[in-house]
Amino acid sequence: MTEMAGYKAEHFEWQAEGGIATIRLNRPDRKNPLTFDSYAELRDTFRKLPYASDIHAVVFASNGGNFCSGGDVHDIIGPLVAMDMKGLLEFTRMTGDLVKAMIHCQKPIIAAVDGICVGAGAIIAMASDMRFATPEAKCAFLFNRVGLAGCDMGACAMLPRIIGQGRAAELLYTGRSMNADEGLAWGFWNALHGADALEAQAHSLAERIVAGPTFANGITKTQLNQEWNMSLDQAIESEAQAQAICMQTQDFERAYRAFVAKEKPVFAGD
Amino acid sequence: MTEMAGYKAEHFEWQAEGGIATIRLNRPDRKNPLTFDSYAELRDTFRKLPYASDIHAVVFASNGGNFCSGGDVHDIIGPLVAMDMKGLLEFTRMTGDLVKAMIHCQKPIIAAVDGICVGAGAIIAMASDMRFATPEAKCAFLFNRVGLAGCDMGACAMLPRIIGQGRAAELLYTGRSMNADEGLAWGFWNALHGADALEAQAHSLAERIVAGPTFANGITKTQLNQEWNMSLDQAIESEAQAQAICMQTQDFERAYRAFVAKEKPVFAGD
Amino acid sequence: MTEMAGYKAEHFEWQAEGGIATIRLNRPDRKNPLTFDSYAELRDTFRKLPYASDIHAVVFASNGGNFCSGGDVHDIIGPLVAMDMKGLLEFTRMTGDLVKAMIHCQKPIIAAVDGICVGAGAIIAMASDMRFATPEAKCAFLFNRVGLAGCDMGACAMLPRIIGQGRAAELLYTGRSMNADEGLAWGFWNALHGADALEAQAHSLAERIVAGPTFANGITKTQLNQEWNMSLDQAIESEAQAQAICMQTQDFERAYRAFVAKEKPVFAGD
Repeated sequence: MTEMAGYKAEHFEWQAEGGIATIRLNRPDRKNPLTFDSYAELRDTFRKLPYASDIHAVVFASNGGNFCSGGDVHDIIGPLVAMDMKGLLEFTRMTGDLVKAMIHCQKPIIAAVDGICVGAGAIIAMASDMRFATPEAKCAFLFNRVGLAGCDMGACAMLPRIIGQGRAAELLYTGRSMNADEGLAWGFWNALHGADALEAQAHSLAERIVAGPTFANGITKTQLNQEWNMSLDQAIESEAQAQAICMQTQDFERAYRAFVAKEKPVFAGD
Repeated sequence: MTEMAGYKAEHFEWQAEGGIATIRLNRPDRKNPLTFDSYAELRDTFRKLPYASDIHAVVFASNGGNFCSGGDVHDIIGPLVAMDMKGLLEFTRMTGDLVKAMIHCQKPIIAAVDGICVGAGAIIAMASDMRFATPEAKCAFLFNRVGLAGCDMGACAMLPRIIGQGRAAELLYTGRSMNADEGLAWGFWNALHGADALEAQAHSLAERIVAGPTFANGITKTQLNQEWNMSLDQAIESEAQAQAICMQTQDFERAYRAFVAKEKPVFAGD
Repeated sequence: MTEMAGYKAEHFEWQAEGGIATIRLNRPDRKNPLTFDSYAELRDTFRKLPYASDIHAVVFASNGGNFCSGGDVHDIIGPLVAMDMKGLLEFTRMTGDLVKAMIHCQKPIIAAVDGICVGAGAIIAMASDMRFATPEAKCAFLFNRVGLAGCDMGACAMLPRIIGQGRAAELLYTGRSMNADEGLAWGFWNALHGADALEAQAHSLAERIVAGPTFANGITKTQLNQEWNMSLDQAIESEAQAQAICMQTQDFERAYRAFVAKEKPVFAGD
């Protein structure tokens, strides 16, 4: 296990305090596009997270009124147009690896989305575990509008399970924006908050999670993804094993002792 | 095949009339916690149901204004804290076996939920086929709050398919209560009814189901669970076979004869 | 590749213009029931669509105020009642093959549903990619009411992923009508439009899709269905490959060139 509170990121902002890492893209003047470099560094950072002993939740925040404008047209799209298949697959696998790293990082991720959240930005929100947005959030899976398919970084698998197959199909076939009210009604956003409150609300949720049984939270995340395509019987057996593991943690005993003593449990993540 | 109208349950209430079994937990003074004994007897009872020729639907009802407060802290949580892994897995597998038995019982289950519906109680509601609640229903997958993971008895697989992946994640990571209006808007509750009407409405739905083609209903239940993780092509072939079986029942012919005679069909379940 | 603009259909109406095929059943006096013949011809037509170079979207329209009343009682149900298992399975497989053909046709399908949309008609709407309806639309998966199981042509797999497992269960166990407002709130209908505007709105959406990158749209459709029961990691790798393919199309380059030139891209489907 390592510590990541002092981690330095080169291509995005990284802050860590109280067990919560806050990530934000750092080109607010251009609505925070992704570049080859920031993609790769995000992937590597999320890959480190399973081993970080001091980070128990992540807030993926907005910057300057926007979340992320997707892959940079000049930095990414231009070079891709000239690339051969080997290079293209290397790129699409790298972007997919970012989603895989987010899924497998064992720490709950909360996206806090203001303004523009499109393309790969929408994917980062989608691949987070929970999502808050402002009423001004505009989220578009706009791959279709740049000549591509809706199947980007897992969208055809994940978006239908969040908002339903029919709504996902419309967003992916048209590339249109989902406005904040739609996103709330459809279950994409867990809640809407004003821009002034957005990040504080995301941190408040993160604090609640970090104050919980963090080892067990990691198991919850593992199982939410692991059971994606299990049969019901397999999922139930898998949970019997996973929960039995959690029942041997100190946090489970702490909760019991606190209940008996009519106190609030204080969890320690082991 | 056996009959279960005269079945005696020791650790919960069992009534059966008109093809409908009504189950309710029977410790209303403590909001109906589950014990090792009631878990095991519920599991065994649902395992008998596929062979019961006189039961065609189940209502899992509330008692004294509450549905179920989950595993009893003193009867269950206390002993678990002291248990070794073999014992823990035996327990989590038993709880999972209750859900498996509910899924495989071939009879539609309607949960009628008033008041507290938390922990394993929320799971019993979730594992039912349809769910009614009162405006006072408070449903919480509160495992996180007792130091455990959200993956209990199939929750990480089933809850996302009922209310969507994002909403399920929030409930499982925080353990917070889902209020009745949320549960209705999200599709967890099929409808809300006042406490006075709740059980009558559940029975009315059960009567409608029991008056239908009960053999075919059992096939519907089998397929809803069986196709959980099939490919689309596999699911379609599986349904071609399952529906062909139903087309050889008398109930299918009864419906046709009734239609031709401009009468209401009277089904007999064969 | 062939062209289907001049295709002649015998048992339903077929029109094709501007890359959009419009299909409508043609027995409006009887609310457009399906027959053995129209089932088989629809299946064969959708099977031709992957090879049609001039059709890029399909509108499945209503006729005379109704969409489809399902399998004809006299033409289909009557003969089925007298059929042996071999014949029954041949029939249920043929109906399933229609859904498979719709799923595999590589062209987005938009259902435009007015009035009655029941039984196999509800399945055709469900198996479409997007769905518009009028406030008068009545959609019922009424198999239960004719003595059959809800598992017809993929309903137990597909309906839960569109509207959620609990709502799907209720519709399939009771056979009751889903009204237009429910269908909209639950994500079955993508939008409601008045009867006068319904087909124009469906065509407008189809035109938008046809003006997009049609090769990539076919990949979106393939992946939405292909990833149905993949693990998350498998889905992400599958999308990395599928999107890399799309990045070698001219449409991807056209979009980039248009963006750089500050123009609207004109896609050509290659």
